[in-house]
Amino acid sequence: MSKIYVVGIGPGAYDQMTGKAIAALEKSDVIIGYTVYVDLVKEHFPEKEMMTTPMKREVERCVLAFDEAKKGKTVSMICSGDAGVYGMAGLMYEVGVNYPEVELEIVAGVTAATGGAAVLGAPLIHDFCLISLSDLLTPWEKIEKRLLGASQADFVICLYNPSSRKRHDYLEKACDLMMQYKSPETVCGIVANIAREGETAQVMTLKELRDTKVDMFTTVFVGNSQTKEINGKMVTPRGYRNV
Amino acid sequence: MSKIYVVGIGPGAYDQMTGKAIAALEKSDVIIGYTVYVDLVKEHFPEKEMMTTPMKREVERCVLAFDEAKKGKTVSMICSGDAGVYGMAGLMYEVGVNYPEVELEIVAGVTAATGGAAVLGAPLIHDFCLISLSDLLTPWEKIEKRLLGASQADFVICLYNPSSRKRHDYLEKACDLMMQYKSPETVCGIVANIAREGETAQVMTLKELRDTKVDMFTTVFVGNSQTKEINGKMVTPRGYRNV
Repeated sequence: MSKIYVVGIGPGAYDQMTGKAIAALEKSDVIIGYTVYVDLVKEHFPEKEMMTTPMKREVERCVLAFDEAKKGKTVSMICSGDAGVYGMAGLMYEVGVNYPEVELEIVAGVTAATGGAAVLGAPLIHDFCLISLSDLLTPWEKIEKRLLGASQADFVICLYNPSSRKRHDYLEKACDLMMQYKSPETVCGIVANIAREGETAQVMTLKELRDTKVDMFTTVFVGNSQTKEINGKMVTPRGYRNV
Repeated sequence: MSKIYVVGIGPGAYDQMTGKAIAALEKSDVIIGYTVYVDLVKEHFPEKEMMTTPMKREVERCVLAFDEAKKGKTVSMICSGDAGVYGMAGLMYEVGVNYPEVELEIVAGVTAATGGAAVLGAPLIHDFCLISLSDLLTPWEKIEKRLLGASQADFVICLYNPSSRKRHDYLEKACDLMMQYKSPETVCGIVANIAREGETAQVMTLKELRDTKVDMFTTVFVGNSQTKEINGKMVTPRGYRNV
């Protein structure tokens, strides 16, 4: 039976891949992914065949992977972060119904929420939500409802895809929504280029975050009512009771 | 300056640790953790000094780590999954204010949400929440509010600590709350002993989950309105628009 590994390669640096992810790539004949991710791994697997498709061509990329597997090759489909968090794992199962002879194995990785958290200090720690601000596949009304629901229930919120050329004011809109329930003084943090060249991190208030420009390589963290700044780090306590 | 690494060792299997986590443990003179986690790594680092403290003695464990570091040792404090997701990273910063001469570095890992998701298929994929059902440090009213808020906003929900001897009916209570907004037919999944001996996974409906007994080594996944079962796997699509 042909096999495809759907592999989370972590935030970027080779040393943040798991041993299992490295082993999957080593066992593969061909490594397929979005150009940027293939560029992140190719120097470590110089002998492997690499195939890329551009962004927003995800279905095509899945079909390519299954077609290669049908030829008898072992394939790794790589995703940044974790394959199952805004990654390709779901679409691979959906496209896979047409390829019952191909076996899928998902290999987990460090997603930007936890990779970025490690850079900022300890912003998550307790209950949190991931919300993508991209409305490419999700209606904005649904995103709005989630921002409000998560804020009202005092979750730490981690925002993926906080901005793009077409969505330059989405973070500002999201902050205004969260401030309906969260204090403008809520401790927040941003991390850009996690575990890649040019990694930067900054801790600020929600009010300041509202007027901060971020790009698509930035992950945003919004604290809960207990989150504090300790010596420049963003830290959420474990719970609400003093022990 | 003395250094402490706060290291997420992943769900359990050695091959799910990152290269950075392994390097941190290799650089350390002493590895400190809850007994169960130290048992998971000690065969791979036979030459290292290991120190353990029991569960619920977390502050004591942090003080122990800082005291060892003050002696000039390099220390790794290990956590299962990710150090910043219901892990020790936050408490280490809090205790660390008394030890300004000790530097902390957080090393991210694969948390149960993503490690378990890889076993079930692709349950998360899009926006999701992590909620712990343990009311040891969080009032139940707060947990209830989060279960309701997350369900109403149609998040995929991943439950940590779904049960314990004292809280045997909490999952049942949580399911009843989620069913105020989620259909009883919502696709759910459970994974026990992720990446450890005796790993098992099961896909079921929310109504069935309500009457399922789970233990403290189980992670629970509750789908959103789009989540489906595909050939025994739990799969959430990327968004709400067909593309």
